[in-house]
Amino acid sequence: MTDTDTKALLPAGLRDLLPPEAAVEAGVVERLVSHFAAFGYDRVKPPLIEFEESLLAGTGAATAMQTFRVMDPVSQRMLGVRADMTIQVARIATTRLRNDPRPLRLSYAGQVLRVKGSQLRPERQFSQAGIELIGVDTAAADAEAVVLMAAALQAVGVADLSVDLNLPTLVPAVCDELGLTEAQRADARRALDQKDAAAVADLGGRAADLLGALLKAAGTAEHAMTALAAIALPAAAAAERDRLAQVLALVRADLPGVTLTVDPVENRGFEYHTGVSFSIFAKGARGELGRGGRYMAGLGNGHGFEPAVGGTLFLDTVLGVTPRPQPRRRLYVPAGAGQAERAKLAAAGWTVIAGLEPVEDPMAEAARLRCGHAWVNGTAHELAS
Amino acid sequence: MTDTDTKALLPAGLRDLLPPEAAVEAGVVERLVSHFAAFGYDRVKPPLIEFEESLLAGTGAATAMQTFRVMDPVSQRMLGVRADMTIQVARIATTRLRNDPRPLRLSYAGQVLRVKGSQLRPERQFSQAGIELIGVDTAAADAEAVVLMAAALQAVGVADLSVDLNLPTLVPAVCDELGLTEAQRADARRALDQKDAAAVADLGGRAADLLGALLKAAGTAEHAMTALAAIALPAAAAAERDRLAQVLALVRADLPGVTLTVDPVENRGFEYHTGVSFSIFAKGARGELGRGGRYMAGLGNGHGFEPAVGGTLFLDTVLGVTPRPQPRRRLYVPAGAGQAERAKLAAAGWTVIAGLEPVEDPMAEAARLRCGHAWVNGTAHELAS
Repeated sequence: MTDTDTKALLPAGLRDLLPPEAAVEAGVVERLVSHFAAFGYDRVKPPLIEFEESLLAGTGAATAMQTFRVMDPVSQRMLGVRADMTIQVARIATTRLRNDPRPLRLSYAGQVLRVKGSQLRPERQFSQAGIELIGVDTAAADAEAVVLMAAALQAVGVADLSVDLNLPTLVPAVCDELGLTEAQRADARRALDQKDAAAVADLGGRAADLLGALLKAAGTAEHAMTALAAIALPAAAAAERDRLAQVLALVRADLPGVTLTVDPVENRGFEYHTGVSFSIFAKGARGELGRGGRYMAGLGNGHGFEPAVGGTLFLDTVLGVTPRPQPRRRLYVPAGAGQAERAKLAAAGWTVIAGLEPVEDPMAEAARLRCGHAWVNGTAHELAS
Repeated sequence: MTDTDTKALLPAGLRDLLPPEAAVEAGVVERLVSHFAAFGYDRVKPPLIEFEESLLAGTGAATAMQTFRVMDPVSQRMLGVRADMTIQVARIATTRLRNDPRPLRLSYAGQVLRVKGSQLRPERQFSQAGIELIGVDTAAADAEAVVLMAAALQAVGVADLSVDLNLPTLVPAVCDELGLTEAQRADARRALDQKDAAAVADLGGRAADLLGALLKAAGTAEHAMTALAAIALPAAAAAERDRLAQVLALVRADLPGVTLTVDPVENRGFEYHTGVSFSIFAKGARGELGRGGRYMAGLGNGHGFEPAVGGTLFLDTVLGVTPRPQPRRRLYVPAGAGQAERAKLAAAGWTVIAGLEPVEDPMAEAARLRCGHAWVNGTAHELAS
């Protein structure tokens, strides 16, 4: 069987994690979640599947096209396999934990499935870990989410982080103020998404001036905030700019070593966000390590909404820039040693590879089993390499 | 909203794990898998869904009725959501890791979904952790699987373990030797499953004698092995009895504090097993903590089969008898403290609950946020309880 045959055993976008990657991923997830816990984010674990209408309620609507559905023979209702965990955590916060004091801090880690991968991310199963800070709508809360996500990445050894801050509601606020038609808005959105300054200029009038200035403001946080300050924004948009400035100041103070950039017209992937949003990058990483932002948490439908800010880390990308732990040393222990002896060696830090039957040459058997040492006469003998 | 309303948010058999249960479960899983790793069982992580034909190949056929299916729009083929991980690990062993030296030791942990719960286990999502020892067919391998599973449970604090050993192939071997018809076999199986000695006697002839004696042999390992030794078993069945005796001797030596029982006619849930099988129980547990046994690993279909022995732990039951870790102490740190100060307190073992805005009475705010201490003037003040 060729390697191609082996790969074809799984559908496109799905894969097996083999040793040591599976253990490394699990270890990094636990360290991230422990970091979240140390700052008061308590873990919740929603199920892999639930009623479609719960998964797609509120902000979940954005995942409708990405959600695998199955019919539930028990309830005779449609279930969805989660494509994202934020909506589930928001459901827990606004129902089961509705009586817990606010701000409510929750964390999660788990697998999500998507019907189709994208060109940038062909995977269809993702390992995610993230946080939600629910019940407050302040710059301090926005900043806490950004800082915690970045600090957790630093805690697992990711270096050279940068955070890009966005304001996906800024452009709509400007368009509202200018009274643009739906068609004009769509043109503006397309031009901004493509960072096409000429097309923005073609919008003409005050839209061309204001949106062109916003487009040019993208860059380092210093550049962006100076440029934004110079723009005569309508009141609602100006309030958003001021909030971003507050968040930036708090994040800068708490993350002195992290590069901060601002793109005030970035919108993609932030469709359901209602305020400051962010993406985290690192030197050498394939794409963003995580993203998050402000949104309204809740199922609606009588259960109410609450202001929230949260973020998700994508483990496949994170693992690409996380230093590998030193593997434990493998020790071949020939058959006949008892469990007590093996347990003592394991407790001493060895990975104990027990022989299941007597062998003539323990050193050769150790080599065959990829051990660096063999346990002979009560001593760990290192194999000649 | 009443608590009933809240529960009805999820389909029957599915649930949210809330704080602190979600964190406790994740911690126990990681400790179990670490224990497996210390004895050379390397973690693998197969995807949640894969081609139905892979999931249901070989021993996977037993899970066909329990597997959720979805249509894959990418491959236009049917996918299954795994109802068990053993078949996936066996697939990895016999394909991707086919060139790794044997015995191959693999571990896994993850979620599985079932279409319907049983009366005994209404849950439809299970958290599992387990091991597979692939490529050897010896009593030592059987014993290693039993010992490792039990020792891992002891390592996470489960006390008063007992292991029930079974030989699901013994009764079929006896029936073969006696030349029973299909109808007679079905009668015998039903009588034995119901532990109905009268119905076994009704089988008449040598079947009544032999199967009746096997039924009476169930009990403590000492009783069972003495009783089995006294039965004039046909050759194939006698060989199975001898293998069981070898496994028992090895397990007894390695697990001196664990109660061992033998039920030579137990068959339920071991449909695909080909040799010694086992279930693990603990005092006070709701049902079995785990089970396992010998089987043939592989997809068939040109990829070959290998002898294997493995076992799975059911986390919901395990958590019911695992001591809870001491929770970290929660410290309210008023707004204004910097990230450096908060990080130092977290590193010192506190769960840091940051204030997001100034408050007049930090002690009252700490109490509202369920903290036992508040950080005031550089000191952790304990709240009056």
